[in-house]
Amino acid sequence: MDIDALRSAHPDHWSKATAIRALTLDAVAAANSGHSGMPMGMADVATVLFEKHMKFDASQPTWFDRDRFILSAGHGSMLIYSLLHLTGYEQFPIEELKNFRQWGARTAGHPENFLAQGIETTTGPLGQGIANSVGFAMAEEMLRAQFGKKLVDHYTYVIAGDGCLMEGVSEEAISLAGRHQLSKLIVFWDNNNITIDGKVELSSSTDQVARFKANNWHVQEIDGHDPEAIDAAITAAKKAGKPSMIACKTHIALGHAAQDTSKGHGALTDAGQLEAAKAAYGWNHGAFEIPSDVKSAWEEIGRRGSEERFAWEGRLGALSERKQEEFQRRVAGDAPKKLASVVRALKKQASETLPKVATRKASEMALEVINPVMPETVGGSADLTGSNNTKTGDLGIFDTDNRKGRFVHWGIREHGMASAMNGMALHGGVKPYSGTFFCFTDYARPAMRLSALMQIAPVYVMTHDSIGLGEDGPTHQPVEHLAMCRATPNTLVFRPADVVETAEAWEIALSQKGTPSVLSLTRQGLPTVRTEHKSKNMVAQGAYVLAEAEGKRQAILMATGSEVAIAMEAKKLLEAEGIGTRVVSMPCWELFEEQDEKIRKRVLPAGPVRVAVEAGVRQGWDKWLLGERGREAKAGFVGMSSFGASAPAEELYEKFGITAEAVAEKVKSLL
Amino acid sequence: MDIDALRSAHPDHWSKATAIRALTLDAVAAANSGHSGMPMGMADVATVLFEKHMKFDASQPTWFDRDRFILSAGHGSMLIYSLLHLTGYEQFPIEELKNFRQWGARTAGHPENFLAQGIETTTGPLGQGIANSVGFAMAEEMLRAQFGKKLVDHYTYVIAGDGCLMEGVSEEAISLAGRHQLSKLIVFWDNNNITIDGKVELSSSTDQVARFKANNWHVQEIDGHDPEAIDAAITAAKKAGKPSMIACKTHIALGHAAQDTSKGHGALTDAGQLEAAKAAYGWNHGAFEIPSDVKSAWEEIGRRGSEERFAWEGRLGALSERKQEEFQRRVAGDAPKKLASVVRALKKQASETLPKVATRKASEMALEVINPVMPETVGGSADLTGSNNTKTGDLGIFDTDNRKGRFVHWGIREHGMASAMNGMALHGGVKPYSGTFFCFTDYARPAMRLSALMQIAPVYVMTHDSIGLGEDGPTHQPVEHLAMCRATPNTLVFRPADVVETAEAWEIALSQKGTPSVLSLTRQGLPTVRTEHKSKNMVAQGAYVLAEAEGKRQAILMATGSEVAIAMEAKKLLEAEGIGTRVVSMPCWELFEEQDEKIRKRVLPAGPVRVAVEAGVRQGWDKWLLGERGREAKAGFVGMSSFGASAPAEELYEKFGITAEAVAEKVKSLL
Repeated sequence: MDIDALRSAHPDHWSKATAIRALTLDAVAAANSGHSGMPMGMADVATVLFEKHMKFDASQPTWFDRDRFILSAGHGSMLIYSLLHLTGYEQFPIEELKNFRQWGARTAGHPENFLAQGIETTTGPLGQGIANSVGFAMAEEMLRAQFGKKLVDHYTYVIAGDGCLMEGVSEEAISLAGRHQLSKLIVFWDNNNITIDGKVELSSSTDQVARFKANNWHVQEIDGHDPEAIDAAITAAKKAGKPSMIACKTHIALGHAAQDTSKGHGALTDAGQLEAAKAAYGWNHGAFEIPSDVKSAWEEIGRRGSEERFAWEGRLGALSERKQEEFQRRVAGDAPKKLASVVRALKKQASETLPKVATRKASEMALEVINPVMPETVGGSADLTGSNNTKTGDLGIFDTDNRKGRFVHWGIREHGMASAMNGMALHGGVKPYSGTFFCFTDYARPAMRLSALMQIAPVYVMTHDSIGLGEDGPTHQPVEHLAMCRATPNTLVFRPADVVETAEAWEIALSQKGTPSVLSLTRQGLPTVRTEHKSKNMVAQGAYVLAEAEGKRQAILMATGSEVAIAMEAKKLLEAEGIGTRVVSMPCWELFEEQDEKIRKRVLPAGPVRVAVEAGVRQGWDKWLLGERGREAKAGFVGMSSFGASAPAEELYEKFGITAEAVAEKVKSLL
Repeated sequence: MDIDALRSAHPDHWSKATAIRALTLDAVAAANSGHSGMPMGMADVATVLFEKHMKFDASQPTWFDRDRFILSAGHGSMLIYSLLHLTGYEQFPIEELKNFRQWGARTAGHPENFLAQGIETTTGPLGQGIANSVGFAMAEEMLRAQFGKKLVDHYTYVIAGDGCLMEGVSEEAISLAGRHQLSKLIVFWDNNNITIDGKVELSSSTDQVARFKANNWHVQEIDGHDPEAIDAAITAAKKAGKPSMIACKTHIALGHAAQDTSKGHGALTDAGQLEAAKAAYGWNHGAFEIPSDVKSAWEEIGRRGSEERFAWEGRLGALSERKQEEFQRRVAGDAPKKLASVVRALKKQASETLPKVATRKASEMALEVINPVMPETVGGSADLTGSNNTKTGDLGIFDTDNRKGRFVHWGIREHGMASAMNGMALHGGVKPYSGTFFCFTDYARPAMRLSALMQIAPVYVMTHDSIGLGEDGPTHQPVEHLAMCRATPNTLVFRPADVVETAEAWEIALSQKGTPSVLSLTRQGLPTVRTEHKSKNMVAQGAYVLAEAEGKRQAILMATGSEVAIAMEAKKLLEAEGIGTRVVSMPCWELFEEQDEKIRKRVLPAGPVRVAVEAGVRQGWDKWLLGERGREAKAGFVGMSSFGASAPAEELYEKFGITAEAVAEKVKSLL
């Protein structure tokens, strides 16, 4: 690559882009780890994007109508940290860059949304950023339709690498984006032909340009180091009327001895090579030194959007107070006051009428009363709409001709769905929930973990949550998935037992702002166990006494979801033999863990035999069976220890021994 | 669709294909559940494939050189059950079909490889079959190169639906197949334009034909009901020199009132409509009745390959006894006798020289001695070859011009990799192992679960297994992944502490035939803790006393992997204060669970304080801390309860409090 030619052709551009390259080299050298090559290769694209196109105001990083910038190739984190520093984000003084990858720094190895403003999403696990971006762009479309383009009108820009495009989730994402003609989504592909193992040819012969076209995208191919070509391509992309992919031919680690090699992907820390690269750039400044003219030019870019922001604030301020409040509530992600009252009314009705329905149906009943009072909810399903029961009458279908539609047909794309839900939640203004079968948590898992890590609150509606789904067999029957979800930090896992608990779970899930929820819901019908109306949200306690022992308390049965009714049946059997039995419903372990010991002790006192019933694996239950004042000799578990099987549900419960009789027997064997 | 025209144009074909449709309708009606439409739509393709092309012998379903048939759209299981019955597989008498989806039947809701011969892989979770097929086809290429085409020379045929192609893993699979020019892989796309939610347009506008072409495939488009077109397309596909996709335009639920609708996807059980469909077919037979001429014609198809099989057996029998034995050993998946001796030698050397290396490096050391004596191993990495340490000197790279290469550059495709590993394991003759970062278990998870469910034994080499990876931060730091893997039935999860344990784990993993293994390995260096050579494989016991208490045993420290060394340090601190401390290394819980209580009790006796140390979440540890004779008041855990952070590894261990000092303090607080 002829560095001198690049430099002399566009000297102002060159010095701005070089600031990114130099900061990257310095920070990686200081940390002695990190990824140098990508920021060095994509510095020109990023510079032109921020200088000429990105709508943002560095002094107001959370301005709602800003363009969103997503670094899907998150390992190149120094690119975004450099941009945030150079354009003047308060949270990114040069000290942050000097502390790259150190404890407590905002400049983590990969960009973490929860550490700093200006980082729209956590990236690093490849493919997630580009899949998030679909949710960002959908949310923008929806909100533009709802609030008008005077308040919502912005682009989502993505930088994706070869890794992002090899990950399967990228196909789900670009297929969705193409289907929905998300014309304000613009993806730059860092086409540098290098992965960690070597050249891309080593593992791929896919024609990415043809692939994006096949997925109904507008595509351009440019020299990713030519600022004029970059500018022109972005301008054209904005007018494309489709999602647009700009294939940017770049040189990884441009100007460094490791240029165009897989070594260039990683940490370029050799001092001599570093100096040589800087010399080649014509950059004669010390480590972390940015000449003031270059810094000023970048800070002017950081201020470029302030006028537009002022104007936007003016338009917002001109709305009626009520409209402003509603908009601000939506942006803040606060649940409306009406949520509690509609949930309470449904609970009361259910406790009176005692419906026998599957909890997936109970969930639909809850959504039918919630969606009308929460215009921010966006529902969906991964091609199981009739099974997940996530679509309510009032939502409308999101489509190219109905951007106000609030239900998304995600197709058979659980991973892309979850990742787009993350994008929606991060964008703000909407509250995503969507469903698939609980077993396919497996497919959505990478994005579900990121919901928890990113401290956002999408709601995963996971139906068909055990062998209770019956004939579809073990591929569709979760047994370890409750344990998996519960093992994940910062995740609320709800397994409600009836309509009342389901409604309570929904209230809690939709009130979260920093924690995702998983609703584990049955296919099969369940009786109402909450037969006495309480206005208090009992699920919020995590676990509670559903039915007290008659006479002396000799046993405590703990259960969740569909097994609560089995525990209640077992209680009857035991009480008939004079064995006083308490039933504790445990719809949400995480919330119970948060309770004071006093409350936990009241629910789970020392002494009685404890038997837990859940149609999943035992892992995790020992905490409640043996811990919390329990004892090994007086504790038992009735559940699964293997994969399921294909047969009618009732038969499976019999064959796998999850019955009231088995529970009663287990108790008696422990007395 | 003009059924009469189809029927009159090819009457013999029609009656054979109609037998599939009729059996499907009858079985779904009997079960009152299932999926009718797909088998009815693809009956013509399947009939031509089995009649004219598939190399198989129904009387010898496990003949190694048979063509493999993979029903990726597994919900249409009645298609394969019908074929297996009609062609005369012993395990599929008509009674099996009458018991469709019932307890104990081989005709499970989705095809399960472990229930019957003729079912090459378990399908149902969409996209898996087509991704498996890449592994099948790779294994065939490798074995053909190794043993010659007189012994190995067969095709892999796949039927995939729209759901399979929407799942992201399909992109990983077809991109890999295109890259490796797997010319004996032929995929039929059931292009019926219907998903559960409605028409495909509802969620996708992707041009699948263009997409496959972009991924370097040969593509044809045909009428999926025209037997001549089907035959010609298969013939052309075989000659394509590339993987070939045949887009078959079909009508879901052909000839039924629900034809071409999403209702047709599911269970068509209405008796009147069922009879009307049969009448339209000109099929005047009772439920499950196949006229003898049709059955005979099908059985002749089932015998068609017997001559070829005889010839093949002759060629095998003509080999030297030693070559025959080796071939049969490879097919049976038995580890060679030399495995134990090379592992023992490595252990001895390590216990003498006490290397301080990361367990990922230890794993490489093990593979360096194992791969030369196990020509069946196939290694790989999802673009982290230098980090996962899965490539040894002798493997060679699998490529279009080196089919003998035993290392696969999978690219950034963890899910596709794991699913292809499943395909290889199912194909037989090769023993797949491959690596990625442990955190990206998340991406590979759907296929890893299927390894366990399918009772096959790929080895997942998961490096960078905790916060010990340092600066890359929480997106890359597993904390819940050990719990996830351990929660999964039929999975061996190994977390070895040093070279010795790593070598022992490899020996066990490669000796499995029905259970997958996960090796959780460190990035960071660890001291050798097994300083005294034992020829016995101690990891095989799951947990064992690594270091006994000096004097009175007051505490037992339990640890795995990188935390065993911390436990050993803590022991020193405690012993210095006169607190007798035993250290138990627990490299594989599942194997320890299998031990007699006598052995478990010897390792974990009642009485002493127990503290477990593991840089992951506590979930699951209560079994060993509170159960197995433990007590809540005398048990503690030192590990993670949140996501990690970005910083140097040593600092993270300090900050998250996973240190010898913290362990010693915890013990003292419990004494």
